[in-house]
Amino acid sequence: MTVNFSDIEAAHQRIKHLIVKTPLLNSPRLDEIAGRKLWIKAEPLQVTGSFKFRGACSAISALTADARERGVLAYSSGNHAQGVALAARLFGTSATIVMPHDAPSNKVANTQALGAEVIRYHRGKESRETIGSTVATERRLSLIKPYDDSMVIAGQGTVGIELAHQITEHDVSASAVLCCCGGGGLSAGIATALAATHPGLSVHTVEPEGFDDTLRSLRLGYRVRNASEQGSICDAIVTPTPGELTFPILKRLAGAGFAVSDQQVLHAMKLAFDTLKLVTEPGGAVALAAALFGAHLPDADELLVIASGGNVDGSTFQKALAIG
Amino acid sequence: MTVNFSDIEAAHQRIKHLIVKTPLLNSPRLDEIAGRKLWIKAEPLQVTGSFKFRGACSAISALTADARERGVLAYSSGNHAQGVALAARLFGTSATIVMPHDAPSNKVANTQALGAEVIRYHRGKESRETIGSTVATERRLSLIKPYDDSMVIAGQGTVGIELAHQITEHDVSASAVLCCCGGGGLSAGIATALAATHPGLSVHTVEPEGFDDTLRSLRLGYRVRNASEQGSICDAIVTPTPGELTFPILKRLAGAGFAVSDQQVLHAMKLAFDTLKLVTEPGGAVALAAALFGAHLPDADELLVIASGGNVDGSTFQKALAIG
Repeated sequence: MTVNFSDIEAAHQRIKHLIVKTPLLNSPRLDEIAGRKLWIKAEPLQVTGSFKFRGACSAISALTADARERGVLAYSSGNHAQGVALAARLFGTSATIVMPHDAPSNKVANTQALGAEVIRYHRGKESRETIGSTVATERRLSLIKPYDDSMVIAGQGTVGIELAHQITEHDVSASAVLCCCGGGGLSAGIATALAATHPGLSVHTVEPEGFDDTLRSLRLGYRVRNASEQGSICDAIVTPTPGELTFPILKRLAGAGFAVSDQQVLHAMKLAFDTLKLVTEPGGAVALAAALFGAHLPDADELLVIASGGNVDGSTFQKALAIG
Repeated sequence: MTVNFSDIEAAHQRIKHLIVKTPLLNSPRLDEIAGRKLWIKAEPLQVTGSFKFRGACSAISALTADARERGVLAYSSGNHAQGVALAARLFGTSATIVMPHDAPSNKVANTQALGAEVIRYHRGKESRETIGSTVATERRLSLIKPYDDSMVIAGQGTVGIELAHQITEHDVSASAVLCCCGGGGLSAGIATALAATHPGLSVHTVEPEGFDDTLRSLRLGYRVRNASEQGSICDAIVTPTPGELTFPILKRLAGAGFAVSDQQVLHAMKLAFDTLKLVTEPGGAVALAAALFGAHLPDADELLVIASGGNVDGSTFQKALAIG
């Protein structure tokens, strides 16, 4: 089971009245630092503060009326949680969200404020997949997985449909896209969309150093795991291993992956604040960090960069503000 | 001499390939606080971080080739400076900027980084108008005034043209617009545009408490001055008195003005960070502050709110982040 461009187009038709067509931003100062022109897709401006709202709306809008009646369940460190919570409310269904004990407090609070029931678990000790499927079975809820769900991938792929339009609109000559990668739903969706509209464009995943399972898996050709799921500031994109559905897509369509340090990420967040006036969270700023500070980047005059989310606590943001 | 809708349409034709069509954002949490639906026009995402780039591009693009050859001069606390500096560069001319000694350091640095020559003066002791016109005469530069310039007002009015489209696109039912006001270029431009496209919509100015010259002038029917130009955190919108060109437009078209406290402004900045992922500067957040916390607001189910700029120092932003 894979995802085709027609699935993404269908998802776009179902959700386009609900999502923000996020702008493609540019800053002369960022261009100067990067040594090339950067076009930044500003997904922190998406409803609920990240691209995850797209996948959630896509999946919930594709449910049968009967399933929608019973409600949905999701597990998430925060962004997928908020996306599913609001999407559920908009489609008139209820949401139960399984969240780790160390999820940022603003993400937990926002998820509850959107009307979802939150069940906490201990990351590292318990499996969210097990808790999630147990509760989903007991309560007869539809599980909306964060990335290994074709309707979710199709929803994230609507970023690629917007990019395709914006490439024409802004006369962008980029030949590569840098995109954050946790489970790979966003990068797989964008790669699928752009393979259909701009076959010359390569999509590259970006991960935190030490949590670069996708980079290593793409090199090896099979899925490997991260040694740990804890210790990164990029909580939103730390996953144990690439997705079952997403990895074959990335293996077929993506270029080489990149990894960035926490310090590079915080610096990118500061520069996004200074120049773009955009709030990014650490996991949402990894692609920008790679575009600004990475080595061995694709040889292109222009790069497309996905800034994927902005759900960051004030205290973490202050660490970024304190830089340079 | 006034500004007509056709001037704004002409300005839009001259500059639309250079500006960001900034998105109209919404947040369920902000709606809950405001007790009505808010649509926030995100001008911090504009090139150079504020709407001022629109007016600068409009004015410079309207100069004769001969005048453009000689260069332009502007006086500004920062946002107009950055807008003129980059617009000058894009139109192949040089910019000289007269800035107050206490302008935020990031605004001075950004203006210089954009290639402009900066001349400092002492706010309160010297007159920027006098220094500006002296230097402009000596060097035969075209003075681009921050608001009392019909081409600048026409450029700021392009925000109104975009709003008119977005009102249709998002099916907005707002009957009022809240807009920050310094000299009145933005509010006068928007009021002129919307008077043509949406005659039922009223535009309301918002200023810092204690620096509410426009509010008081509109009440009295003639222009009065602020007691001081110092002491507000909203440096971008503190002006001595409404503009000669802008005030008659506002008197004819605007509704009653509003004023907000520094604390309300900081709180609005924090909420824009939390919910919209948008960086706003104090002067850029006054309209949002009024929409969230103001009394005696227009009786409307939905409000349009202009967030006008995001050029804020990290230390000022930290004050906002520290709020509840």
